[in-house]
Amino acid sequence: MGNEQLEELRGQLDKVNDQLVELINERAKIAQEIGRVKSAQGLNRFDPVRERKMLDSIEANNEGPFETSTLQHIFKEIFKASLELQEDDHRKALLV
Amino acid sequence: MGNEQLEELRGQLDKVNDQLVELINERAKIAQEIGRVKSAQGLNRFDPVRERKMLDSIEANNEGPFETSTLQHIFKEIFKASLELQEDDHRKALLV
Repeated sequence: MGNEQLEELRGQLDKVNDQLVELINERAKIAQEIGRVKSAQGLNRFDPVRERKMLDSIEANNEGPFETSTLQHIFKEIFKASLELQEDDHRKALLV
Repeated sequence: MGNEQLEELRGQLDKVNDQLVELINERAKIAQEIGRVKSAQGLNRFDPVRERKMLDSIEANNEGPFETSTLQHIFKEIFKASLELQEDDHRKALLV
């Protein structure tokens, strides 16, 4: 019975993983769009004030079980990866 | 016009951030359940074979724009945080 329960929970986890992959990529697409708009306006892609606001919003929305600091750490990785994606796009645009 | 577009995109990003916070916490709850079932069965909470399978599944499901290695890096942070959560729960259970 324990093993069936474990398999059931792992199935649930796999579904959430799939949704996360999709949602993180959806976020990446929006970040790419933002990067394009900013490039067109000559704005800096890195915006620490906006990042701070997003981190504060995570704190406001967090109902657990993860600590806010844990979620913020994960999101900082996502921010960093998004910025790298925007920079790659920018370099590619320059090469066209 | 560019600023309106930027605000619209930022609004979209904020919504995705909220969904991500919710989904990452949903995943954490399932991981906590798995931790409890494993504790009850005397199983080790860290399972590198299962982690490998989840990382492979990310590769299979990734439609971009993020590179698979980027997503896997983000997920490894989530795995690590989940394991820490399971270990905290276990310590608390021992103290009861």
